[in-house]
Amino acid sequence: MPTIAKGWGTDAADQPLREMEFERRDLRPNDVAIKITHSGICHSDLHTCRNDWGGSRYPVVPGHEIVGTVTEVGPEVTKHKVGDTVAVGCMVDSCMECDQCLEGWEVFCRKGCIQTYNSKDFHDGTVTKGGYSDHVVVRDHFVCKVPDGMDVTRVAPLLCAGITTYSPLRQYNVGEGTKVAVIGLGGLGHMGVKLAAAMGAHVTMITTTPEKAKDARELGAHDVIVSTDPEQMAAAATRFDFILNTIPVSHEIDGYLNLLGRSGRMVIVGALTPMPGFTGFQLIWWNRAVGGSAIGGIPETQEMLDFCAKHDIYPDCEHIRIEQVNDAYERLLKNDVRYRFVIDMEQTA
Amino acid sequence: MPTIAKGWGTDAADQPLREMEFERRDLRPNDVAIKITHSGICHSDLHTCRNDWGGSRYPVVPGHEIVGTVTEVGPEVTKHKVGDTVAVGCMVDSCMECDQCLEGWEVFCRKGCIQTYNSKDFHDGTVTKGGYSDHVVVRDHFVCKVPDGMDVTRVAPLLCAGITTYSPLRQYNVGEGTKVAVIGLGGLGHMGVKLAAAMGAHVTMITTTPEKAKDARELGAHDVIVSTDPEQMAAAATRFDFILNTIPVSHEIDGYLNLLGRSGRMVIVGALTPMPGFTGFQLIWWNRAVGGSAIGGIPETQEMLDFCAKHDIYPDCEHIRIEQVNDAYERLLKNDVRYRFVIDMEQTA
Repeated sequence: MPTIAKGWGTDAADQPLREMEFERRDLRPNDVAIKITHSGICHSDLHTCRNDWGGSRYPVVPGHEIVGTVTEVGPEVTKHKVGDTVAVGCMVDSCMECDQCLEGWEVFCRKGCIQTYNSKDFHDGTVTKGGYSDHVVVRDHFVCKVPDGMDVTRVAPLLCAGITTYSPLRQYNVGEGTKVAVIGLGGLGHMGVKLAAAMGAHVTMITTTPEKAKDARELGAHDVIVSTDPEQMAAAATRFDFILNTIPVSHEIDGYLNLLGRSGRMVIVGALTPMPGFTGFQLIWWNRAVGGSAIGGIPETQEMLDFCAKHDIYPDCEHIRIEQVNDAYERLLKNDVRYRFVIDMEQTA
Repeated sequence: MPTIAKGWGTDAADQPLREMEFERRDLRPNDVAIKITHSGICHSDLHTCRNDWGGSRYPVVPGHEIVGTVTEVGPEVTKHKVGDTVAVGCMVDSCMECDQCLEGWEVFCRKGCIQTYNSKDFHDGTVTKGGYSDHVVVRDHFVCKVPDGMDVTRVAPLLCAGITTYSPLRQYNVGEGTKVAVIGLGGLGHMGVKLAAAMGAHVTMITTTPEKAKDARELGAHDVIVSTDPEQMAAAATRFDFILNTIPVSHEIDGYLNLLGRSGRMVIVGALTPMPGFTGFQLIWWNRAVGGSAIGGIPETQEMLDFCAKHDIYPDCEHIRIEQVNDAYERLLKNDVRYRFVIDMEQTA
């Protein structure tokens, strides 16, 4: 039987989020039902609510950093059982038959992966609704295990901010002694610093804001460069093996490329937008490259959770109640959060 | 004793090349004197003669694709002996003490490598003069061996066009079964096709000119895409693991990035210029990257020569006499050469 979910969503681009009820489907044979305990707030949630990227299907119930407890499983589910603490990230389904799915990169499913909210379900055409709600029904493959002993109140942001930064660090073999820089100290950047440091890298935070130097060091950065200081930037030329670029808006890259040493790589994870021009010489000289990286696949997401459990890595979270979500969005627009909001879905006013 | 060299050079940006005499230094202990038999013509030669990049020091005697015979060696030289067939590329000296030199990447010498022409010698401040001449004096480390049995008349272009395309193919581990595309069928592109095919890759030529399809297949390309045909470009989306981009001028990259599959890489070897903007999404989605690559180091240049000898790979050459050099430059400007001019330095009118 379908169930009625209680959640928060928005009816239009210019409307605040409000409490709303909607239907969750009856469990398919390979589905898992999850009582949601925590839901992280990602900037993408705000973009989708306000239709910044177009294509929003209202009402939008956002949330793709979900942690909760399994309450029911379909008859074919073997991966999870009732009572398990589990997590769901940006995807809830894919074809599971194409080359990308078979290789564990469901995010690049040839049929298009089904995102956790605002996507049309392959089977019944309904629009997916996310984690700002009391429960969710998700195909088993897309449900990750939260390792025993983790602090469940701080796991949720790992499902987007965590995997989005972990994946490129792994793709580019960041490890012991790698000279890493992280540009931008926000939700993604602060995870990048923690993860790279835990992998053994020497980590430098690059920020426009001198005041963030202390924060960056507390997160584990060994060094800080203020990017608005031309002398600091010039002194750091060719210093880095790898730069994780979390800037979320269009920006010039030549100045950052200049910081890469021979065969250095910069990976953009934030800026999906049209970017200004760059200089061919900045790539050709020193054999540099600039790449991008999108979230990560399900096997790598599980690997990231296991890595964080082993190394005791958590995002810095500010916990709120769901009634505070509209205020949280306003603060998000002002970058006034260190570094991720997590909604405690069980605590209401 | 210094010697008098006979060569061809230009006195100013608006002057043709003319025959001229100049001095070659007396051999230093680690120098090798080489009688030049063949000298390739690279587009960079023309750019430097005409001061297209600024910084030309006249008279300019170009030529950095040099093949010849050792006629004399300094007392400390052990690598080469009189009578050896040898080759010199884009560099003739570097500090040989910095991290880059010690790791075999002399091209990125921290002190700045000394280029074969138009560079100031570290020791005596004279301006280097290149291969459009009857002999040259070069530090032993920067002289490569031409493997026994090679056709010396066709080796010269390997020293620039060859290494510039070989190096990125090796850096990015192109090998058996790699799906490679080569953009641009000129001096670099035609070497890219031959080298990638010899490494076992499946090679597609991407060209704006449908008429080049036959030529590309004769060079070893397995497939051809005409980039001005939107249908062909759309059908090739996500098809390639690696794209060697030899376009020598500023160009849009989004359309080419779209051809890269997951973790696909495009490497720019030609366009040193300011490039137009790109879209972050084209890198982020599919975890793609765009890089650059500059010539290659001396150990890799020797490896490339050995590889070409083993696999019987040569550039397609049109041989000319030095008196024809000004006509050759005019044809170069019209891309009217398949695919590289080689000056026979022993044959004069």
